[in-house]
Amino acid sequence: MPSAEHRLQTLGLHVPPPTPAAASYVPYLIHGDHLYISGQLPMENGLLKHAGRLGDDLDTFAGQQAARLCGLHILSQIKAALGTLDKVSAIIKITGYVASAPDFHEHHKVLNGASDLMMEIFGEQGRHTRAALGVVALPLGAAVEIEAIIKIA
Amino acid sequence: MPSAEHRLQTLGLHVPPPTPAAASYVPYLIHGDHLYISGQLPMENGLLKHAGRLGDDLDTFAGQQAARLCGLHILSQIKAALGTLDKVSAIIKITGYVASAPDFHEHHKVLNGASDLMMEIFGEQGRHTRAALGVVALPLGAAVEIEAIIKIA
Amino acid sequence: MPSAEHRLQTLGLHVPPPTPAAASYVPYLIHGDHLYISGQLPMENGLLKHAGRLGDDLDTFAGQQAARLCGLHILSQIKAALGTLDKVSAIIKITGYVASAPDFHEHHKVLNGASDLMMEIFGEQGRHTRAALGVVALPLGAAVEIEAIIKIA
Repeated sequence: MPSAEHRLQTLGLHVPPPTPAAASYVPYLIHGDHLYISGQLPMENGLLKHAGRLGDDLDTFAGQQAARLCGLHILSQIKAALGTLDKVSAIIKITGYVASAPDFHEHHKVLNGASDLMMEIFGEQGRHTRAALGVVALPLGAAVEIEAIIKIA
Repeated sequence: MPSAEHRLQTLGLHVPPPTPAAASYVPYLIHGDHLYISGQLPMENGLLKHAGRLGDDLDTFAGQQAARLCGLHILSQIKAALGTLDKVSAIIKITGYVASAPDFHEHHKVLNGASDLMMEIFGEQGRHTRAALGVVALPLGAAVEIEAIIKIA
Repeated sequence: MPSAEHRLQTLGLHVPPPTPAAASYVPYLIHGDHLYISGQLPMENGLLKHAGRLGDDLDTFAGQQAARLCGLHILSQIKAALGTLDKVSAIIKITGYVASAPDFHEHHKVLNGASDLMMEIFGEQGRHTRAALGVVALPLGAAVEIEAIIKIA
């Protein structure tokens, strides 16, 4: 079975450098065999790439791109924490916050941008539990924010 | 002391069949002695039963019914994961997302619909920590979504 | 290195008495070496001190005061659960819900009111992972709600 790092290479995905915490906290912490990852925003080169609200400024497809970028930042933090994606035993849980208009109802489809990435990279070990919800606003005006709990091999 | 399964029977509660994940994730995962349950919506026979926003379309009582139905789906996922409610050692934490108008302030009362159910079924072991918050919208337009972390006996 | 209790005294901070759960749940639970703390509101003497929405009724500085007060209530629950702050091994994670207007984007700065307090009191052990998000409303009309997962020494 190909390793997660191998899949990442095969897919030709670019993992961004880990974003420092935007404030008085840390981007990840290891406790026992759990790796906790702080809420990741869809940043690119230090700037927010996907701003605005789903249903107002962005459609579901654009939201999925934002969620996928948040997912790539989760991969980035995993590599910063563990050195390699291959030390991941399981993606336990992701929580996805989607800035949205009151009548937007496809938060689950938006989050698939990140969930599908986890499955592409980690295969069966990437299958995770999840909650997806629509928030009124996010830090910096981001469209999506995703946090994760990872099990370390 | 009566078992959780016994209480369920005595109360004559109908536990719905487990809802498959609506997207690229799984409804539950077991890691060590923890059972993680994805956000559950108030579904009935595969359709959303409680849509809309608290304070706009639903009052607190209707919201409690929605939360209780989410709670029944949590019971359903527990049974799917463990075979029986009697393998639950504790309900550690539930997080409840309530779609609400900006001036609605009874999210905690809405969530009691699920919290009270946990106490009815699990007794002291059903006493859990909790966060309740008002979100702008939820997947499919649901009124309430609840996720849970369970400790396995 | 000064203990957390010592720092608390040196800083002359007042830790409020633990607030009972506002509904059918408990304010904290211990499982193994983890202490789970329910969402804490900015209460003072049994009344909500900081109501309203960031960007509408409160500015970022006022929100930070609200977050700091939520943080003091987290300290209060830790003391209720463990008897002393000195049994804290780490603040693993806080999740901060900020009631906000759709165009408010400084949720991360608001949450620093609580994050900075954790660092003041626990030093390096207070460095935590975090998610900060803007919700449409909170129980009782609170401006901020914060929940936490703590590792016990």
